[in-house]
Amino acid sequence: MDKILEQTLLYDFYGELLTDHQKSVYEDVVFQDLSLSEVAEQQQISRQGVHDLVKRCDKALRGYEAKLGLVKKFEETRRLVEEILRLTERYEATQDVACVREIEKISRMIVEI
Amino acid sequence: MDKILEQTLLYDFYGELLTDHQKSVYEDVVFQDLSLSEVAEQQQISRQGVHDLVKRCDKALRGYEAKLGLVKKFEETRRLVEEILRLTERYEATQDVACVREIEKISRMIVEI
Repeated sequence: MDKILEQTLLYDFYGELLTDHQKSVYEDVVFQDLSLSEVAEQQQISRQGVHDLVKRCDKALRGYEAKLGLVKKFEETRRLVEEILRLTERYEATQDVACVREIEKISRMIVEI
Repeated sequence: MDKILEQTLLYDFYGELLTDHQKSVYEDVVFQDLSLSEVAEQQQISRQGVHDLVKRCDKALRGYEAKLGLVKKFEETRRLVEEILRLTERYEATQDVACVREIEKISRMIVEI
């Protein structure tokens, strides 16, 4: 997975477990793409301090996922629901009953995730 | 939601954020339904200690959900997937194309959760 996508997903799921200060710095660097120097000046900390904080946040967010695996769980579900969506489109084009049977099978898989 | 169901869901999602000791005591009291005295003796802590630990774990688990809301998110998804499953059954009984359109609509809702 590409790094910024991974960071976005992890932050979306677990970001609220970071402190307000961590969230503020992390968002500025990772999502607003501000330079370390800009953020350092705004936050009145050193450039190295900003760098270390972002690294620590990345590590913490990856640690939550390693323990809880909820991003993985949701991504699996999402992938299967997108498959259902494609099957409804195929059904509309073909009226093939097999599509609905496949939807049923996938729905049962999701309920068991 | 009934208390033990809530505890089960919260523990299933966030339990890995507790320490091994907390998990061990919490599981014995809440899921194995052992008495506080039994667990106290096994763990070599006071009965009050066991009681407090379980309360603290409940509070921590509810705190994670208050911050992250992932149980709620997942329960919403699950409810919608169960609705899809019912619609596939209704389609099989009636061959009503409207069921498939409804499945498509629900799938789009899930993808946007």
